[in-house]
Amino acid sequence: MRWAVVLAGGVGTRFWPLSTAARPKQLLPLAGAQPLLTETVERILPLVDPARVLVVTSGPLADAARRALPGVPAANVLAEPFAASTAPALAWATWRAAAADPDAAVLSLHADWTVGRPDAFRAAAAEALSVAEQQDVLVTVGAAPTRPETGYGYIVPGSALSGRARRIERFVEKPDADAARSLIESGALWNTGLFAWTARRFRAEVQAHTPELAAGLPALDRGDAEAAYRAFRPVSVDVGVFERTRRGAVLPGDFGWDDVGSWAALRRVRATDANGNVAVGDVHLVDAAGCVVWSEEGTTVISGLTNAVVVRARGITLVTTAERAPELKKLLDRLPPGVVGERGA
Amino acid sequence: MRWAVVLAGGVGTRFWPLSTAARPKQLLPLAGAQPLLTETVERILPLVDPARVLVVTSGPLADAARRALPGVPAANVLAEPFAASTAPALAWATWRAAAADPDAAVLSLHADWTVGRPDAFRAAAAEALSVAEQQDVLVTVGAAPTRPETGYGYIVPGSALSGRARRIERFVEKPDADAARSLIESGALWNTGLFAWTARRFRAEVQAHTPELAAGLPALDRGDAEAAYRAFRPVSVDVGVFERTRRGAVLPGDFGWDDVGSWAALRRVRATDANGNVAVGDVHLVDAAGCVVWSEEGTTVISGLTNAVVVRARGITLVTTAERAPELKKLLDRLPPGVVGERGA
Repeated sequence: MRWAVVLAGGVGTRFWPLSTAARPKQLLPLAGAQPLLTETVERILPLVDPARVLVVTSGPLADAARRALPGVPAANVLAEPFAASTAPALAWATWRAAAADPDAAVLSLHADWTVGRPDAFRAAAAEALSVAEQQDVLVTVGAAPTRPETGYGYIVPGSALSGRARRIERFVEKPDADAARSLIESGALWNTGLFAWTARRFRAEVQAHTPELAAGLPALDRGDAEAAYRAFRPVSVDVGVFERTRRGAVLPGDFGWDDVGSWAALRRVRATDANGNVAVGDVHLVDAAGCVVWSEEGTTVISGLTNAVVVRARGITLVTTAERAPELKKLLDRLPPGVVGERGA
Repeated sequence: MRWAVVLAGGVGTRFWPLSTAARPKQLLPLAGAQPLLTETVERILPLVDPARVLVVTSGPLADAARRALPGVPAANVLAEPFAASTAPALAWATWRAAAADPDAAVLSLHADWTVGRPDAFRAAAAEALSVAEQQDVLVTVGAAPTRPETGYGYIVPGSALSGRARRIERFVEKPDADAARSLIESGALWNTGLFAWTARRFRAEVQAHTPELAAGLPALDRGDAEAAYRAFRPVSVDVGVFERTRRGAVLPGDFGWDDVGSWAALRRVRATDANGNVAVGDVHLVDAAGCVVWSEEGTTVISGLTNAVVVRARGITLVTTAERAPELKKLLDRLPPGVVGERGA
């Protein structure tokens, strides 16, 4: 049966001051009327029964995640004792799926994406699950790049495997802009984190290739996640599994994927006015272009600005530029802790 | 005896959203800890007894003006029945001074200036009063220009009169930048509105040259300001008196005069940080230069902006540029009335 694992543990300092430790990015309605987490799960429901949707998040966020997902059984929301990157989270959830369903085929995705073409997304996810089952491989779906983004990882596809699926030649993490352009020209894809595998194959590959998790796996076999996490060492599934296995595959996907990495990204994922502005709340724009204005409080008037980011939330007003928005964490590091408030790790 | 008339009727839309009809510019502590009106009156007290300071303002602002000036007798705050430019206001106040003191020498100034060198200001004011008395002329003190400002009027001095006092050759209202540069090179001065005259001479010149006020003067002689205003037609003292009289004189003044014409002007009249920013309230600036940030509410964080103006007051946040700040009225005209709120005429 098809299972989905939604990783929903992020703390989302990139959306300060709207985001807080108690309400990080995935719980905010950044792209539409509902939180990104809710939209992410609803997007896959035509493909996966909600009883087989697992959500991995942190302890303090578990209840909020459950409230955001009324159709998902409360017990399916797994609260990590502490954050340990993606491999432990995916191991825990995959072990959970396998305990209920030894033939589980697992789709792994993140709670804080937006997808412009949901039908194409579901088609790619279904194809990835089929390839994972039929070829007995771990599949990563690479998104067609639309810009030489320097903040992403890239996948270079290798030899043909089956249908559109290719072997993985190599991963390139965060290239500079020139290298990103060369990669795109040579057919490299963005490493999105949309994965598919059978529980059986994933387990075998983790046991073979991920010594960081080895000491915790007996506890996971007993269903004792707390003990497993104490024995795990943090490692991403990219590094711990995909870069080490010989049973990796990549499928291309073109479905308007966006990881909504900063306030500036809202210009890609929300409706804009004729001048390319995004405005949420009681916002009045005069001679403004390319601005992102999110006003939770009061009235906000913008005049004569280009590519500005203005956010009002929790009594705080942030005014910066679209160019700087991806570097928000650096800004927070330079502010007094009392100003920043609770922002998570 | 020396009298001072402080014109305090302005509505100050240039400081929206901080300024309102009930609390316009002259009642705001824009330059220091006290309202501009209070600072203006305190600045002249070494020169003029507070019992001989008259303040002309509008009815709705009279009580606030009295509260801002505890040393000035309440009856000295004159509330105009409606605004009618400067000549009616100065006629009323000068008539009032003359009724109490036929030998009154009157200094006229505005409530919303700042003065960088108060001693030099008082010396210039005293000199203007002396020239007015000794030469029996109406004196305007022209400020030494420091930039080719296009928003001001300029005075071109003419032939020598006495000491530093010159006849007035002509007035030039709001020249373009090239014309302003030529005027400055030829020795023209800014028309500040700092005037001096004897009540006797002012009265004679008004009667001779200001037909706009003629019908109201008998009522003013009876002390009935309300009836006088109904009979007046609005006219400025520059046009109604100075441009028509042959008994005008100009004195140069160099005392750091500023009319604080916009949010951007605060960079001239308030202390700035090492990057030329003005910050009032709980403001945090990171990689910002030349910004004016006035935060009455909450916390305001500015990152990576140059020459921005950010104002938070009354639940409203305004974000614009220093370049556009002088055009704030045009912006307000483009906003829904409900957003702008009460802003006066």
